[in-house]
Amino acid sequence: MQLGMIGLGRMGANIVRRIVKDGHTAVGYARREDQIEEFKGELGDSFQGATDYPAFIGLLEKPRIVWVMIPAGATGAVIDEVAELLEPGDIIIDGGNSRYHEDIRRAAELRPKGIHYLDIGTSGGVWGLERGYCLMVGGEADTVRHLEPLLRSIAPGVDAAERTPGRTGDPSPAEQGYLHCGPAGAGHFVKMVHNGIEYGAMQAYAEGMNILYKANIGKILTDEHSAEETPMEHPEHYRYDIDVPEVTEVWRRGSVVASWLLDLTAEALHADPSLESFSGRVSDSGEGRWTLHAAVDEGVPAPVLSAALYQRFSSRGESLYADKVLSAMRKAFGGHNELPSK
Amino acid sequence: MQLGMIGLGRMGANIVRRIVKDGHTAVGYARREDQIEEFKGELGDSFQGATDYPAFIGLLEKPRIVWVMIPAGATGAVIDEVAELLEPGDIIIDGGNSRYHEDIRRAAELRPKGIHYLDIGTSGGVWGLERGYCLMVGGEADTVRHLEPLLRSIAPGVDAAERTPGRTGDPSPAEQGYLHCGPAGAGHFVKMVHNGIEYGAMQAYAEGMNILYKANIGKILTDEHSAEETPMEHPEHYRYDIDVPEVTEVWRRGSVVASWLLDLTAEALHADPSLESFSGRVSDSGEGRWTLHAAVDEGVPAPVLSAALYQRFSSRGESLYADKVLSAMRKAFGGHNELPSK
Amino acid sequence: MQLGMIGLGRMGANIVRRIVKDGHTAVGYARREDQIEEFKGELGDSFQGATDYPAFIGLLEKPRIVWVMIPAGATGAVIDEVAELLEPGDIIIDGGNSRYHEDIRRAAELRPKGIHYLDIGTSGGVWGLERGYCLMVGGEADTVRHLEPLLRSIAPGVDAAERTPGRTGDPSPAEQGYLHCGPAGAGHFVKMVHNGIEYGAMQAYAEGMNILYKANIGKILTDEHSAEETPMEHPEHYRYDIDVPEVTEVWRRGSVVASWLLDLTAEALHADPSLESFSGRVSDSGEGRWTLHAAVDEGVPAPVLSAALYQRFSSRGESLYADKVLSAMRKAFGGHNELPSK
Amino acid sequence: MQLGMIGLGRMGANIVRRIVKDGHTAVGYARREDQIEEFKGELGDSFQGATDYPAFIGLLEKPRIVWVMIPAGATGAVIDEVAELLEPGDIIIDGGNSRYHEDIRRAAELRPKGIHYLDIGTSGGVWGLERGYCLMVGGEADTVRHLEPLLRSIAPGVDAAERTPGRTGDPSPAEQGYLHCGPAGAGHFVKMVHNGIEYGAMQAYAEGMNILYKANIGKILTDEHSAEETPMEHPEHYRYDIDVPEVTEVWRRGSVVASWLLDLTAEALHADPSLESFSGRVSDSGEGRWTLHAAVDEGVPAPVLSAALYQRFSSRGESLYADKVLSAMRKAFGGHNELPSK
Repeated sequence: MQLGMIGLGRMGANIVRRIVKDGHTAVGYARREDQIEEFKGELGDSFQGATDYPAFIGLLEKPRIVWVMIPAGATGAVIDEVAELLEPGDIIIDGGNSRYHEDIRRAAELRPKGIHYLDIGTSGGVWGLERGYCLMVGGEADTVRHLEPLLRSIAPGVDAAERTPGRTGDPSPAEQGYLHCGPAGAGHFVKMVHNGIEYGAMQAYAEGMNILYKANIGKILTDEHSAEETPMEHPEHYRYDIDVPEVTEVWRRGSVVASWLLDLTAEALHADPSLESFSGRVSDSGEGRWTLHAAVDEGVPAPVLSAALYQRFSSRGESLYADKVLSAMRKAFGGHNELPSK
Repeated sequence: MQLGMIGLGRMGANIVRRIVKDGHTAVGYARREDQIEEFKGELGDSFQGATDYPAFIGLLEKPRIVWVMIPAGATGAVIDEVAELLEPGDIIIDGGNSRYHEDIRRAAELRPKGIHYLDIGTSGGVWGLERGYCLMVGGEADTVRHLEPLLRSIAPGVDAAERTPGRTGDPSPAEQGYLHCGPAGAGHFVKMVHNGIEYGAMQAYAEGMNILYKANIGKILTDEHSAEETPMEHPEHYRYDIDVPEVTEVWRRGSVVASWLLDLTAEALHADPSLESFSGRVSDSGEGRWTLHAAVDEGVPAPVLSAALYQRFSSRGESLYADKVLSAMRKAFGGHNELPSK
Repeated sequence: MQLGMIGLGRMGANIVRRIVKDGHTAVGYARREDQIEEFKGELGDSFQGATDYPAFIGLLEKPRIVWVMIPAGATGAVIDEVAELLEPGDIIIDGGNSRYHEDIRRAAELRPKGIHYLDIGTSGGVWGLERGYCLMVGGEADTVRHLEPLLRSIAPGVDAAERTPGRTGDPSPAEQGYLHCGPAGAGHFVKMVHNGIEYGAMQAYAEGMNILYKANIGKILTDEHSAEETPMEHPEHYRYDIDVPEVTEVWRRGSVVASWLLDLTAEALHADPSLESFSGRVSDSGEGRWTLHAAVDEGVPAPVLSAALYQRFSSRGESLYADKVLSAMRKAFGGHNELPSK
Repeated sequence: MQLGMIGLGRMGANIVRRIVKDGHTAVGYARREDQIEEFKGELGDSFQGATDYPAFIGLLEKPRIVWVMIPAGATGAVIDEVAELLEPGDIIIDGGNSRYHEDIRRAAELRPKGIHYLDIGTSGGVWGLERGYCLMVGGEADTVRHLEPLLRSIAPGVDAAERTPGRTGDPSPAEQGYLHCGPAGAGHFVKMVHNGIEYGAMQAYAEGMNILYKANIGKILTDEHSAEETPMEHPEHYRYDIDVPEVTEVWRRGSVVASWLLDLTAEALHADPSLESFSGRVSDSGEGRWTLHAAVDEGVPAPVLSAALYQRFSSRGESLYADKVLSAMRKAFGGHNELPSK
């Protein structure tokens, strides 16, 4: 089968590599000729490319399959431009991190033109080439079915995890690593929630590790007593020097919190035990935010997913004004001074 | 009635002033003679003082009433020392911010000696002299009853607030601003929870005001698109320049969130609209922490009180290690770099 | 001045009463003639009314002022219908609980027709007639200025609270209880955040009171030990029978958490000390949800406001599926059974 | 090597089985003779047993190794009783879920008697026999070193997970699945935090799955408008019927949230897709609570771990009083009625 890919960044390029390795062919769009040439050098006859959309479209067999894999902010304009060049029966895929609202709108716009639209939430990050990508697909069932040969090549496959006890017979698509989640937007919806969970689970590890890291706080003796600070009641309970990197390693085997995230954390801490190569300012992309919007709209409590997102905001200083308000109140009712350092 | 006061700091001194103004007399203990002299100059014959405990105790009429009003960390040692000098029937009061566990223990230790012990949680801060102090009392009912003339003078009195509709007849002690909450420790327990609520309510205002403060974020246009950052979907919804100080003022009249805390906030923001005199590093004293311990021990959900305390921890940089763990994970699975600035 | 009011429910009616009492006149729209007659009986010549929009509009002096005070879900259609009957220079006000997004859109739609649009967030609930309403206004400055005689009559006035120290000279509009917050939507934006804060503060009180309520949990002795349940470590710390209604009363005077909400709580608990007339299923209206949407869009941490909303969701059983997932996991890794009762 | 085991419940029995399978011998204590006989039948000459402590102790080679594996509430008394029968140089292990405070105290009590004490946090649940147990050990280094042959047999071993990239040479103890975490209490401290993380991660999945589960809420049309309820703004965004069991399956391969917990969840949902065999009342044991105590004592923010615990409390109805307080407030200021159903 042939796949057209717009966006040969890390993820787009690795998806192309996976399908070519599995016997499919690819057509790539990139801005510069040298990028195209580089891929031709790597992938040989299985790859063709172009640096303008009409030429790119011209290289595709009908019905054309165009996968757009570019940053969320730019996706809409590219899809609009490309859709102008497509014909009824062609398929366009948004594999990036768009909000599912966009998918609902876009699918409705493209439907009258006979163009099929899929949204494919794609998880796997820098490891996808090797591990395969977990694919969460939204759109019409027929179109998804048509794409299955490609989806199977991109996904990790059933052997990537032990089979779930109780499941027998031919592996379901989910067991192979891709799932048709529902109509337009369902793929990005499930991917969005996936990332929300990811934020929550990451924060759970991070908080626990912080508690381990500070377990020696009782060694720091303080003899000063003031009305402002309450002395620690049981310093003898907090005199441990825990080797956090080794703890993450031991938890990888036999414990309830074993996970791929923990594997990566153990590796990162082995390489940089004091984490001094990080600033502590943590970014967030749209999915964590949109997950909260969905929880609130649905009336579903999401305290953990929210707390995880808010801690990222706080890590970037976004609570500063609120904190100053607290200080102003404390001064007003209690005479406490929390002044800026000179 | 006569009250002995150990600790003539802001709160102890103002309690002495309130009772003297109401016709009682006071004996003070302070470390330096000049402090004693200063109070004598201010309060005249109604005040006597001493700079050592035996002399202080010698000035008290029996049964002696000794109110200890010093920082929580130092209270235990002082009570132990003073109790040695007291006789059966005497009364000792911890008016500071001790944990109620201490009260339970101390009352049990003093009981065999015939010494009565009260814990009095005292709210009012720098405003107590003028407004009166809200008193939450723990201990034996007889002892509390004996103290009532003093408690009435220290408390704000029924006129400090409009009478609650439905309450008739003689004002109850609670309506006068003091309450016998239960046996030893009950006073500090109720004061502890009071402060937990205070943290939660303060944080509610602070978060809301931060949302108002950032309501102009849609004016800051960003043209850059990256996989890391999702562009704002509706910048047109966030183009307000809200005058936060004026908002706190308007809410003081007729709104559901009117409160004494809001009154103080409006005053603080009028004096320093940009809050530039504050650092944003917010302290916490023991009560907020102990409130969470109690919630957890009781199995009672306290998400708001917890979040309020944790934001104070975060304001002081205590989430830094956790944040770095998140960055390390993000780099490991997604190749995202959150490096320290050079 | 003359005000047209669409919607003579509790809030609309009381706003009419306040302005008439202050010397203005009112025209009301209601569905049934008898409602009109009732108001005429109460307010005499100062009130006219109609049961269809053209007649209602016909009774208004130009430039007409039409205040729409109906449930959020119905507001849009009514404004559309009425706007068709208005002329350039007329003013239409949404005084309900619309989302501010609507205001931005509506103001833009009405502007070409020369119709002025104001959004007025109105706080005061059932108490507004007596206390006055706190008014948060969005729209063009000229239109707000034109309305000021009415706003002053509806708002509580400067005497409703002690003047903030440091404020001198003529009271600002905020001190009188109304504030022009910014362009279209700013009024509902500030009102929305107000309600978000309200949720957070309410939840802070509720959690603290729950901790007081359960302070007797150590009296319930359990001799059973199982791997599932850890016995309480210090039951002696939780043997208090706190009189929660009296505690809310004592906090009204001199304490840091004194507030109007606390006044109401003390009254409610005095009337129904065990709260048995309530189900514990707590509703939420749009503002709390929209506040979170705004916090997330702005990248501002709002853990307390979120937790408050989520507890309301949970109170209505919305966490049930999530809870079952937890039980399923616990059974899977630990063999714990959390079965439905037969 | 020989291990004495007190407590032949699921975990104790499986630990015995693992060491015997690896060539060690075991002595068991159980209350009833038939339990002993059953184990002898299963394990043959490698197992001896007794039903009273002196006989049990008599069967042990010196220096004796006694592992106590019983519910947390009963552990203290058993250790006290057994310690009376031990001699200097003997080793006693608490392998249960005691709070680490107990370990600090017990180790100090046993030290003068020359008895060595280890606390071993043991994770693995019902899967430990097959997967091995993750062991977190606290105590003196010499004693831990002496125990290593047994620890290696109980732990999963290095092959239980792929080796962390960057680790070379002989596998460290952590890589084999056991870790000496520090002095007395350190093992239970690390296990405690492990469980705290477990709660947080579980709740992250549960919340996300709840959001997926409710993604069809926009299909439930509501035509009623009231001041109490705001109609859904975009029902068209919530019309998905997500197959949550299949989603958990697809996430097992290639996604960032793949984990052992997710494996178990996918299995549980495959067996009971609607989770109707669960009540939704979720228990918590001590570790989650103690983790919060530690976070609060250390001044470390733990919003996710807290929220996870609180949701369990709420699932058991522990927020009911707080919820009623909210209803009482809403009635008082807004006239909203949230009455119990008749």
